[in-house]
Amino acid sequence: MFYVDNKLQYPVRVDTPNPLFARALQQAIGGVEGEIRVAMQYFFQACGARGNPKFRDLLMNTAAEELGHIEMLATAVALNLEGAPLSLKEEMAKDSAINAVMGGINLKNLLSSGLSAMPVDSDGVPFDMSHIYASGNIAADMTANIAAESTGRTLAVRLYNMTDDPGMKDMLQYLIARDTMHQNQWMAALEELGGATGAFPIPNSHPQAEEKTEFSYAYLGFHADGSEPAPGRWSSGASVDGKGDFTSQPMKPLGQEPNLGKAKPKSGAQSEQI
Amino acid sequence: MFYVDNKLQYPVRVDTPNPLFARALQQAIGGVEGEIRVAMQYFFQACGARGNPKFRDLLMNTAAEELGHIEMLATAVALNLEGAPLSLKEEMAKDSAINAVMGGINLKNLLSSGLSAMPVDSDGVPFDMSHIYASGNIAADMTANIAAESTGRTLAVRLYNMTDDPGMKDMLQYLIARDTMHQNQWMAALEELGGATGAFPIPNSHPQAEEKTEFSYAYLGFHADGSEPAPGRWSSGASVDGKGDFTSQPMKPLGQEPNLGKAKPKSGAQSEQI
Amino acid sequence: MFYVDNKLQYPVRVDTPNPLFARALQQAIGGVEGEIRVAMQYFFQACGARGNPKFRDLLMNTAAEELGHIEMLATAVALNLEGAPLSLKEEMAKDSAINAVMGGINLKNLLSSGLSAMPVDSDGVPFDMSHIYASGNIAADMTANIAAESTGRTLAVRLYNMTDDPGMKDMLQYLIARDTMHQNQWMAALEELGGATGAFPIPNSHPQAEEKTEFSYAYLGFHADGSEPAPGRWSSGASVDGKGDFTSQPMKPLGQEPNLGKAKPKSGAQSEQI
Amino acid sequence: MFYVDNKLQYPVRVDTPNPLFARALQQAIGGVEGEIRVAMQYFFQACGARGNPKFRDLLMNTAAEELGHIEMLATAVALNLEGAPLSLKEEMAKDSAINAVMGGINLKNLLSSGLSAMPVDSDGVPFDMSHIYASGNIAADMTANIAAESTGRTLAVRLYNMTDDPGMKDMLQYLIARDTMHQNQWMAALEELGGATGAFPIPNSHPQAEEKTEFSYAYLGFHADGSEPAPGRWSSGASVDGKGDFTSQPMKPLGQEPNLGKAKPKSGAQSEQI
Amino acid sequence: MFYVDNKLQYPVRVDTPNPLFARALQQAIGGVEGEIRVAMQYFFQACGARGNPKFRDLLMNTAAEELGHIEMLATAVALNLEGAPLSLKEEMAKDSAINAVMGGINLKNLLSSGLSAMPVDSDGVPFDMSHIYASGNIAADMTANIAAESTGRTLAVRLYNMTDDPGMKDMLQYLIARDTMHQNQWMAALEELGGATGAFPIPNSHPQAEEKTEFSYAYLGFHADGSEPAPGRWSSGASVDGKGDFTSQPMKPLGQEPNLGKAKPKSGAQSEQI
Amino acid sequence: MFYVDNKLQYPVRVDTPNPLFARALQQAIGGVEGEIRVAMQYFFQACGARGNPKFRDLLMNTAAEELGHIEMLATAVALNLEGAPLSLKEEMAKDSAINAVMGGINLKNLLSSGLSAMPVDSDGVPFDMSHIYASGNIAADMTANIAAESTGRTLAVRLYNMTDDPGMKDMLQYLIARDTMHQNQWMAALEELGGATGAFPIPNSHPQAEEKTEFSYAYLGFHADGSEPAPGRWSSGASVDGKGDFTSQPMKPLGQEPNLGKAKPKSGAQSEQI
Repeated sequence: MFYVDNKLQYPVRVDTPNPLFARALQQAIGGVEGEIRVAMQYFFQACGARGNPKFRDLLMNTAAEELGHIEMLATAVALNLEGAPLSLKEEMAKDSAINAVMGGINLKNLLSSGLSAMPVDSDGVPFDMSHIYASGNIAADMTANIAAESTGRTLAVRLYNMTDDPGMKDMLQYLIARDTMHQNQWMAALEELGGATGAFPIPNSHPQAEEKTEFSYAYLGFHADGSEPAPGRWSSGASVDGKGDFTSQPMKPLGQEPNLGKAKPKSGAQSEQI
Repeated sequence: MFYVDNKLQYPVRVDTPNPLFARALQQAIGGVEGEIRVAMQYFFQACGARGNPKFRDLLMNTAAEELGHIEMLATAVALNLEGAPLSLKEEMAKDSAINAVMGGINLKNLLSSGLSAMPVDSDGVPFDMSHIYASGNIAADMTANIAAESTGRTLAVRLYNMTDDPGMKDMLQYLIARDTMHQNQWMAALEELGGATGAFPIPNSHPQAEEKTEFSYAYLGFHADGSEPAPGRWSSGASVDGKGDFTSQPMKPLGQEPNLGKAKPKSGAQSEQI
Repeated sequence: MFYVDNKLQYPVRVDTPNPLFARALQQAIGGVEGEIRVAMQYFFQACGARGNPKFRDLLMNTAAEELGHIEMLATAVALNLEGAPLSLKEEMAKDSAINAVMGGINLKNLLSSGLSAMPVDSDGVPFDMSHIYASGNIAADMTANIAAESTGRTLAVRLYNMTDDPGMKDMLQYLIARDTMHQNQWMAALEELGGATGAFPIPNSHPQAEEKTEFSYAYLGFHADGSEPAPGRWSSGASVDGKGDFTSQPMKPLGQEPNLGKAKPKSGAQSEQI
Repeated sequence: MFYVDNKLQYPVRVDTPNPLFARALQQAIGGVEGEIRVAMQYFFQACGARGNPKFRDLLMNTAAEELGHIEMLATAVALNLEGAPLSLKEEMAKDSAINAVMGGINLKNLLSSGLSAMPVDSDGVPFDMSHIYASGNIAADMTANIAAESTGRTLAVRLYNMTDDPGMKDMLQYLIARDTMHQNQWMAALEELGGATGAFPIPNSHPQAEEKTEFSYAYLGFHADGSEPAPGRWSSGASVDGKGDFTSQPMKPLGQEPNLGKAKPKSGAQSEQI
Repeated sequence: MFYVDNKLQYPVRVDTPNPLFARALQQAIGGVEGEIRVAMQYFFQACGARGNPKFRDLLMNTAAEELGHIEMLATAVALNLEGAPLSLKEEMAKDSAINAVMGGINLKNLLSSGLSAMPVDSDGVPFDMSHIYASGNIAADMTANIAAESTGRTLAVRLYNMTDDPGMKDMLQYLIARDTMHQNQWMAALEELGGATGAFPIPNSHPQAEEKTEFSYAYLGFHADGSEPAPGRWSSGASVDGKGDFTSQPMKPLGQEPNLGKAKPKSGAQSEQI
Repeated sequence: MFYVDNKLQYPVRVDTPNPLFARALQQAIGGVEGEIRVAMQYFFQACGARGNPKFRDLLMNTAAEELGHIEMLATAVALNLEGAPLSLKEEMAKDSAINAVMGGINLKNLLSSGLSAMPVDSDGVPFDMSHIYASGNIAADMTANIAAESTGRTLAVRLYNMTDDPGMKDMLQYLIARDTMHQNQWMAALEELGGATGAFPIPNSHPQAEEKTEFSYAYLGFHADGSEPAPGRWSSGASVDGKGDFTSQPMKPLGQEPNLGKAKPKSGAQSEQI
């Protein structure tokens, strides 16, 4: 069950409203690396968590935090849109600065939401909940969370580098710090689950003897001339999960030429296919 | 540049066609954990790779492998659909088994593609390329790849547990082994990039002194009654990135009550808001 | 800012797990009439609310309630999926009941989420945040909310009529009651904003004298034979907003035959068009 | 069955082509508040209308009107795009006005459709037919229609305020007037269906005695500190549907701590979860 | 401008309601080969038609026809859904036939639309207007229309083969005949535009001398072993557009190894990339 | 099975990086007329090809070519983005040129992918794999391919006309030439399948005697006043498929007024509908 108060988690202040920066901030709300994604991902992972209940608690607690981040960013978007023109009227033929702003914003932030934030990315594309990865495998979920926070902090750093508004920089410093914590937090959870040698390969409940083990640690080459691809940590030495040794070899086709034969009568194919 | 031959990477054989299993296999083609996702993700990461060129090679080489996996799975779907009925005719009122199959498949596999595979998931939802995570940050990309292969192997294991067709089990044993390798491969790449203490927090090019460091390693609690959330590896001890120490504390709002003030005249708001 | 505890808003109990009902319940989570929609809609309306702050409070408070409803439904889906088979193995050729269940569920609830809820509808289609209507006009928002709760309660009633599981019926009785309240609540808010004669036509800040008033209360007929469409409350008498009188008349084209002329050279048209 | 003539419903004239305004107009075609939405919504509601046939007539007649509005707007978009440059060539480094226009339009209006309208919104996002609300409940449909016309007129007013092209203003005055009528028309239809006290709570066919009536008219508070949310028309007095009295109270969790227990063996979970 | 009457273009009769066939028919409404697609495609092509106005007339006239086809199919879906159960109650554990039907339909046809048609495909996926191809090039549009009617008639034939309901077969015989006409109609229009040797390569307004003509009629081979791909009409002889001669040759890379160099500082990359 | 080398199919060179042109080029990658579409369309058609295996070879060989085109274009996008600013800082209030560029690019190319290409179109909308038309009917597939290459070449010509960068013009000259070949190639394949009189109406396996032949070659008029639509090659003379003669006539409704009757009790309708 969820609760609110009417305050922001951290102060949100915009010293000089910048409608183009409002557009950029939208990526942190409705982009695939944004806050709706993490809030809803942790929420659904929590709802489906099986096994030790501490993970449900960890996930739901962090979901609550992320909902507050959406609220902060939505406030920041609205404040930055204060400076947006509502009109293309007389200025049109004359002022390319106004044109640049008007053309540069997501017009939906004006036309659809009246100078407020929307659950869309920086190009106006709505967030799509298929990006909520909640696999029912707690370790796989942690890898998805590390990935989400890695791309999330990368985005926050890019936004931070884009602005010199003191209020916005301050807010982003907070969000970047939280992403630092969350990267660490999910790595810590993965460590509790056994880390590289205990949790991997994910799912660790599958008996590895049943897989084709001759391919489990082989770096296969698909260069057209049969040459070896560039070597690295992945082509020799002990595997990272500690359960094998990396080898490297060019791949040849092991399978047949596929042939589906003729089409069934009445299946809507051409006569020539039947 | 890409090349083909007309052979499959690994043999694909279906002993007893099962249209419902064809539907399940579609998830491994067009699901968010599926092979289109990894093929295109590695491809776009390769195309945008900056820095050491060995990573471009690693990514593009693996993209080629994954394209071959789509081909294998698409063949498997078509072979499993061999058993699908084309008709609801006389049988309709009588045979619930035929109804079950007809209702149970993605009807588009029959109506749109004529008993062939499609780039859709197991519920007929088309794959959407927003799932291609290619961030321009090579370490963030590796975390996304570990996540993709973790959910991918989980899916392959679920498919393997769902069937007892010897041909399908054999094909899936190969794909599971390859996912084992790919999880290890991307972890190995991350190790080359410095591992937990060198690559994190991602991006490691951002000077951490500029973030609000008092929040960088703090596990904040959002329980409504102010109680501490469940402790774990993430609430005390050295952080996983080696750059701080975890602490834990309930969070209080630090920000103001947001107030956007009145709406602008001519912004389409109600009179009461202006 | 948001908070959680680890309890459900209302008890969720499933007496007889039914995987097909789990699929139906998904519509109440990720369908366009579902709980993600209302939670996020009220949240974004709150974040963009301008004018009297009591509406922000009303909206954010209700958003918190709806987040708890998603949690309840996600729990109900997981509990109903307890009965789902994981396998199509030996039973396949024999047991059409198992086939019916396996074909009847959203396979992603098994393959992607491991028997847990997902942010998708009853056909496995992910929720898309373009359904979050937050217009910046508080009265328009209220109409969208009344519509959301009207379709939402209709859905809840259909689910209630579909099951006779006592636990599920009890949970749905609660959700239906809340939808009753929410329909009334948003109508009450609209009443505070002036109701039919004060708030309409929305936006009421636009000077009606500037619109083509001869068409503002005319029911126009588009029947091919020029006959009058069926009369009703909308074709005569005082308009509902109290600002005009309904009239009724067949429509004739008032505009020209559109002619875009020739295509520009170098615009990629055929030579014949240029 | 549908018919056409080759004329526009109302004159469409563009005095000074403005490619940025073309982009804005796209929202009225393919935005969620746009004309495709209402045309198709009324069409599908008509096709599914059960009960008194006058509603089918009302809906289909208005669908025909809205199709003509799309046609008008598509013509307006094409006429406004007349002024768009086709080239970034020599001007590029020099003329920021051309850059502003070129960057400011939906490039697909040039690259995909050759200076014509498309079924996309003002940010180039295609319209998605999940926005067609046709519930099978005629009163719920009316609430969806009032909402559609309320956001639709808000959008039209914003477009009207954005331009001072006399032709465009004239066309928008007509469309705003029609939205006035349509808001009234659907409210009139709702009145025929019983209005606030007869039609609500929707669906009115559900026996209210079966819902948890102690929650049917209670405004529940979810403030973290247990304080009352801001009072209003919704927290005391007779309910708008006339079937109860509003009360107000803070909410406490009534349900259990959810616990899904262990994961099933072979369900793809980690060993630790099983 | 559009008009309606309240009659169907062709009789729609369902002798034995079949909810699974209702699901299949949804593909002809909201599938990518369905009637919404063609109605809206011809409509938008008409709105953007430049050059000879007879093509606008042809396109808009056919759009009107297709709108009537959606209406017919929506009626057919509703009539077939008459037989759908509303309940999973007591029957659940016992009757696999009911399970098969309930699992086999798009549940949204019950839960969202109350036994009516929706603008979704046979797997419940909503139609997405990005499928409206209207290119501004009248010949390219004709090729898209031929393709739409070819896949459309294939779908109609599959539906026809799937049912033996006399009413449904009769309706489909009509729709198949219309698709025959429409394939011919668009080919005839393409013939007016010059046919294979006059209209192609599309756009024919581009001076072919500016393209790399050595590659304009060469069938390039991408077989990994450098072997020739299978020969055909496309590998030798006069080209179909009459402007060259087909040749055939294996392809070798002509370009460089791409190297994007280092990442920019402050671009969010890892330190190792900068 | 697929292979790679690390070279580009054709040289990619950007003389003057232009971030707006990078945005335009994205349409050729992730637009519906772009290279992902053709690569994946030919790939899936190949995987589902039944009948003469030469078509599988033709399709898969061309799929490999198109993958190389995506690689070329992705390289071109990254090279054009070299000139993009990373910052809105001090320049903001002053330099409308920078604003124009920053507002004009897909911000995701900066924020999500760090100055690299993405699988999105020129407005930042991700490619959606529902655009992969692979029908199981080899002739229908060829019509879809001709359409794809016709709109594809139109797009490439528009891009060519938009730039005067010598490197980009050279690359586009190559891609335009390949589209010329591919239009011819698929027309040649259609010719092998019988051409206009042998392959059409598609599917040619359906016995035409079973369709309502009186409507198979009739150009029906839907003008509201009953007038004849504009005549053309499609309204008289032999049909293009050689199996009939075109006629022309205004259409009258042949069907009934549809009436779905009352709603079912417990179906969630209003009482008035039941």
